[in-house]
Amino acid sequence: MRGRKLLMIRPMLIDSEDPTRFKPGSNTIIAVDTLGAGEGELVMFSQGSSARQADGLKQLPVDAAVVGLIDTVSIGDKKTYEAKND
Amino acid sequence: MRGRKLLMIRPMLIDSEDPTRFKPGSNTIIAVDTLGAGEGELVMFSQGSSARQADGLKQLPVDAAVVGLIDTVSIGDKKTYEAKND
Amino acid sequence: MRGRKLLMIRPMLIDSEDPTRFKPGSNTIIAVDTLGAGEGELVMFSQGSSARQADGLKQLPVDAAVVGLIDTVSIGDKKTYEAKND
Amino acid sequence: MRGRKLLMIRPMLIDSEDPTRFKPGSNTIIAVDTLGAGEGELVMFSQGSSARQADGLKQLPVDAAVVGLIDTVSIGDKKTYEAKND
Amino acid sequence: MRGRKLLMIRPMLIDSEDPTRFKPGSNTIIAVDTLGAGEGELVMFSQGSSARQADGLKQLPVDAAVVGLIDTVSIGDKKTYEAKND
Repeated sequence: MRGRKLLMIRPMLIDSEDPTRFKPGSNTIIAVDTLGAGEGELVMFSQGSSARQADGLKQLPVDAAVVGLIDTVSIGDKKTYEAKND
Repeated sequence: MRGRKLLMIRPMLIDSEDPTRFKPGSNTIIAVDTLGAGEGELVMFSQGSSARQADGLKQLPVDAAVVGLIDTVSIGDKKTYEAKND
Repeated sequence: MRGRKLLMIRPMLIDSEDPTRFKPGSNTIIAVDTLGAGEGELVMFSQGSSARQADGLKQLPVDAAVVGLIDTVSIGDKKTYEAKND
Repeated sequence: MRGRKLLMIRPMLIDSEDPTRFKPGSNTIIAVDTLGAGEGELVMFSQGSSARQADGLKQLPVDAAVVGLIDTVSIGDKKTYEAKND
Repeated sequence: MRGRKLLMIRPMLIDSEDPTRFKPGSNTIIAVDTLGAGEGELVMFSQGSSARQADGLKQLPVDAAVVGLIDTVSIGDKKTYEAKND
């Protein structure tokens, strides 16, 4: 596990009161990041044995991995998330 | 993962107050779609290592996949869901 | 998956207020049935990679399977469930 | 699965209001017992593919197994559980 | 499992009201400790088949393992946890 970057992730849920918005879930997950995600970014992550399918994680005791960085999310016609580009 | 279509899925639960109806669950799942599902459709999905059994997903860090499109749901005698046919 | 019978299952939980009774849980699971269960029956089901150990499901993207039909449940001395025999 | 003893298990959680005590969780799990646990005993159980690592369960559609009988639990200095010895 | 040290773990969640703090989750997990963690320490743990990737656990019916000891946690600019050094 040496040298692996780890992120704290809060799953985002569709807000029941306004399904065009996200709200943060209540649990917190530690995931290995192989893609260089930063604080405040929206990422896609995989859990369980599937997380170990990500590059270079096959033999590690890893149960969550970031597998994608998200640029934009659209729900219906409404853009609900857009990544900040630096 | 390049070129894979991803869907945001909200699990549907049987409504405790009226078991002939569904209500949306509170969590949100990102699943790979290999069947061409569209917005507003009811689908069946599989999670964990089982999702990787779907066509062409064996080596991918995928922990959820759409494995079926649902035409109709009947609970008891009542049809609770019917897919819109275009 | 062609020709597989699927069931909607609601997990039963022990009722906290009266531990000799069951109450239905709030989630809904779609499981493959290889045993011929019917509506209203109490079954035992298995989830995740374990579900794929059931007969004939090894290669399918199945994450829940009915693995037993339940005849009677006894909690302490009280019989809390008895299958209807036709 | 023939001849396997099954137990209904209620997970015990640390009570938030008094962390030296347990309280029963709200879900109910059916686990294979290979150790001879009895009613009212506190056991340790394993879920998912890990449960199938228990003796003789490798090929069975089993997603929970009792893997230990608990004699005593101590939280801090306080003994919170002690098995009844017959 | 003989001689394995087991720990009771309470997952820590980010507090919704003050995201720079942790609060204890409501569930309790039993994990194998291969690293010598002590009471009151913050650890990282892995669940499911991933836990069995930890050193020496491949064949055991273990569904949770401590895979790291945490020195400090920083959320934004604020250090939210620091391990006590003896």
